[in-house]
Amino acid sequence: MKELEERIRRDGIVKPGNVLKVDAFLNHQCDVKLFDQMGREWARLFAGKQIDKILTIEASGIGIACVAARHFGDVPVVFAKKAQSINLDGDQYVTKVYSFTKQREFPVIVSKRFLNPGEHVLLIDDFLANGKAMEGLIELCHEAGVVVEGIGIAIEKGFQDGGAKLREAGYDLQSLAIVDSMNPDTGAITFREA
Amino acid sequence: MKELEERIRRDGIVKPGNVLKVDAFLNHQCDVKLFDQMGREWARLFAGKQIDKILTIEASGIGIACVAARHFGDVPVVFAKKAQSINLDGDQYVTKVYSFTKQREFPVIVSKRFLNPGEHVLLIDDFLANGKAMEGLIELCHEAGVVVEGIGIAIEKGFQDGGAKLREAGYDLQSLAIVDSMNPDTGAITFREA
Repeated sequence: MKELEERIRRDGIVKPGNVLKVDAFLNHQCDVKLFDQMGREWARLFAGKQIDKILTIEASGIGIACVAARHFGDVPVVFAKKAQSINLDGDQYVTKVYSFTKQREFPVIVSKRFLNPGEHVLLIDDFLANGKAMEGLIELCHEAGVVVEGIGIAIEKGFQDGGAKLREAGYDLQSLAIVDSMNPDTGAITFREA
Repeated sequence: MKELEERIRRDGIVKPGNVLKVDAFLNHQCDVKLFDQMGREWARLFAGKQIDKILTIEASGIGIACVAARHFGDVPVVFAKKAQSINLDGDQYVTKVYSFTKQREFPVIVSKRFLNPGEHVLLIDDFLANGKAMEGLIELCHEAGVVVEGIGIAIEKGFQDGGAKLREAGYDLQSLAIVDSMNPDTGAITFREA
């Protein structure tokens, strides 16, 4: 998606260790107009699919998913939680994933009430790198008996293996920008051709 | 706001210990059409004010704020983070608040780049009870030299003192539903008259 690639080039910051900072518009400060364009693009890419619900994971996925849902007939957005709370009770689907960004393992939790067997779900997140968070969401979906219709990612790090694994497993993965390489010395970013 | 009050009566669950669970539509599963109505209502309530940016706090505020921002001319939404990460670097505004829900103290962090002196900010969150999280955001705003134009809350627990303190301090606080009492035995909820 041209608008997203241009924005990454303009406001993204390449850091050593394969870190791409996009906190100016994606995951700390949010450009909701861009989110709306992203939602429209996913609606085009997943056109014809039955999407009953969008599932994402806190925190950065939430804003993107909620704005995008407006392009999917205002379907409910469920966000998986990464910590227990006294407000979370009753039956839950729970798994654990390791975050390289946070450098620790954390739980991924969804109340069973919000994933109903037979529902068709679109998974959305801001980043895909090694795919651990997405694997966690998919595991919960399988446990719940919901159908994963597709996966919408804003920025995929194409030089890590999360995307390849999901595509090989047969998922309809639509990443709006795929970074194939980036250079922390020059700041240069190479995107995969669509 | 009638739509929100009706939704709380229909899908909210009153639990012992003054807990109101609204995870079916507000803070675990999200009704984005309702969020849109809430955004429209805040735009009406804060009409005529200069709003350059919306500031909220992860995680439950993000979806509400991002959908609401569409009614404020697509202003940027900044969400304060509750944990350090390797993606957070550089100068930050940081304070600490105690969460009764999570039963622990956590940091409230905003990169200095995203709060610019002189900006006019609208604060948005899903809940207001004792007001600790909101006080944390206000503290960061003062430190940053931004003007707090108003505070938009979805559900205020009117029987706790957060709202009264903020109004006494002169803030333009607009809560879309104010719960004055709730009964865990009967499930009855009394809303404050507008």
